[in-house]
Amino acid sequence: MIESTHISLAHGNGGRFMRELIDQLFARQLGGGVDTDLDAAPIPLPEGVPLITTDGFTVQPLEFPGGNIGSLAVHGTVNDLAVSGATPLYLTLNAFLEEGLEVALLARVVAALAQAAQAAGVKVVAGDTKVVPRGEGSGIYLATTGVGVRPADLRLGIDQIQPGDLLLVSGSVGDHGTAVMLAREQFGLRGDLRSDAASVLPLTLAARPLPGLRFMRDPTRGGVATVAHELARGSGHCVRLQAAAIPVQGPVQAVCEMLGYDPLFLACEGRVVAVVAPATAPTLLAAWHGLEAGRGAQVIGRIEAGRPGVILETELGGERLLEELEDDPLPRIC
Amino acid sequence: MIESTHISLAHGNGGRFMRELIDQLFARQLGGGVDTDLDAAPIPLPEGVPLITTDGFTVQPLEFPGGNIGSLAVHGTVNDLAVSGATPLYLTLNAFLEEGLEVALLARVVAALAQAAQAAGVKVVAGDTKVVPRGEGSGIYLATTGVGVRPADLRLGIDQIQPGDLLLVSGSVGDHGTAVMLAREQFGLRGDLRSDAASVLPLTLAARPLPGLRFMRDPTRGGVATVAHELARGSGHCVRLQAAAIPVQGPVQAVCEMLGYDPLFLACEGRVVAVVAPATAPTLLAAWHGLEAGRGAQVIGRIEAGRPGVILETELGGERLLEELEDDPLPRIC
Repeated sequence: MIESTHISLAHGNGGRFMRELIDQLFARQLGGGVDTDLDAAPIPLPEGVPLITTDGFTVQPLEFPGGNIGSLAVHGTVNDLAVSGATPLYLTLNAFLEEGLEVALLARVVAALAQAAQAAGVKVVAGDTKVVPRGEGSGIYLATTGVGVRPADLRLGIDQIQPGDLLLVSGSVGDHGTAVMLAREQFGLRGDLRSDAASVLPLTLAARPLPGLRFMRDPTRGGVATVAHELARGSGHCVRLQAAAIPVQGPVQAVCEMLGYDPLFLACEGRVVAVVAPATAPTLLAAWHGLEAGRGAQVIGRIEAGRPGVILETELGGERLLEELEDDPLPRIC
Repeated sequence: MIESTHISLAHGNGGRFMRELIDQLFARQLGGGVDTDLDAAPIPLPEGVPLITTDGFTVQPLEFPGGNIGSLAVHGTVNDLAVSGATPLYLTLNAFLEEGLEVALLARVVAALAQAAQAAGVKVVAGDTKVVPRGEGSGIYLATTGVGVRPADLRLGIDQIQPGDLLLVSGSVGDHGTAVMLAREQFGLRGDLRSDAASVLPLTLAARPLPGLRFMRDPTRGGVATVAHELARGSGHCVRLQAAAIPVQGPVQAVCEMLGYDPLFLACEGRVVAVVAPATAPTLLAAWHGLEAGRGAQVIGRIEAGRPGVILETELGGERLLEELEDDPLPRIC
């Protein structure tokens, strides 16, 4: 462990303190033979189409039930590759640390990051650390970039979607957004709810071989409703969701009713929305139900010919247009 | 252009405002056919060893003579690939924007970023934007990750270095650090000095074919002195620098004398330090002198058998141990 108890500006200046921070804290946890003296790291790639994705993380608080900003950064980036049909292989990590940050907290974040990376089978091969003056950050911001490889014959995309296709979600919605909000304690609410943040790779690996698979996405910022809008806009069709079919955990429902939120707009960090041909839906549902991470999977809607937009069939049998998210009721959940 | 004049939290929440910001500002400048709806972007790679690198940027002020945080982010990342012997191909971009940031300033930064990427031949293929509350940032932080490909038969590394090898620098040192410091106006100094920030790819492409090329690095944070310490530590040999041979521009020298800085510790953002076999030094020097970016190139030192460390031969004929940087006299120059 490094000597200091708190991060100082010297930990970001390119000299001895920065080297100690990187070698003793980051490389020790993430290492596995990574050469921290390299300007650029080799990333041998197997056959297939290489894919890249990047994400920034500013979640508050930095730690929450079910994870912290470190594990979240891994899951967010791994999941963007996984829903694109790729097997994630490599990560790079940028850390913006605020002067005065507790080194012990940073160590917990890096440990969770290392554990999540190992569980998802990705290697952290490059990193960079900057320290910003006290007050010009909020502890830790992270940015992660992921590289993976997709089988060359896998065709996934919004352009594959056809009227009649069905929408599935792999589990309950809004858990992450609600768990982070409860962790803030700004509403005086407490609960046992944990974030769903996790790698969705087992779910996407189960879906990938199915011939009727059209499209997958992880419903993060803006939730399932925002994915539905992207589907409508990208496919040019109407997306019809059945409110009664969308899995929402009791505590999420309760918090949303109390505060006037809609769980459809709240972030998940370990769920997949998939669009499949009608004949494929039962197969995928069965495959997901056989996985720990997919036990709550449901068919939640369908694609229909018609004006692009999102229609929600309410539990009472009515229907309404689901608006696009304008302003976030819960900022900084990722 | 987007409607708003200033960035608000809604520009980071995953909804309509964020989509407008990304489509109208980032994608319009960086676009070139990038599909902003993709979770992960395909990056077809030619033959060779794929390399990856990542960097964060928190420079203050955001704009300075010779560049801004956007062009700096491209150059910093492209240069890490270039000195590793790779041809840079792809970039990903993370932007952490502070609520209240002027959209016009952001547009200038993105324009410079786009121009620098185009000049270096790299394509920005993926990005992410987060907005942090007013006061919890300092306008813009960027993180960029670069992917390139190195010829499979190119052997570069600290382990290639042998006693007798010579050190070259491609141009004057400390320009970037000094230009950014002057732009801060915190010392009441002004000057015409411009940052040297630029892609070093032309310099590294000229060096790559030379058989005696052992190692290249760009002397950024911590300057040429820090590279010399890395060389000493990594090779296990002594690095001997000749102060009289190290090119320092007049204004940099003047500022350093006035403020008690050492130009050897100040950042460059467009220079290369190369280690070559003695017989290769004249060839590389001639090749660099033939390039606009390398006109100021010099042989500045050599590798000697002996205790690892850095010795500076002073202009008066003496010598002293050059200490490792402990604390940065000029933080936040990148």
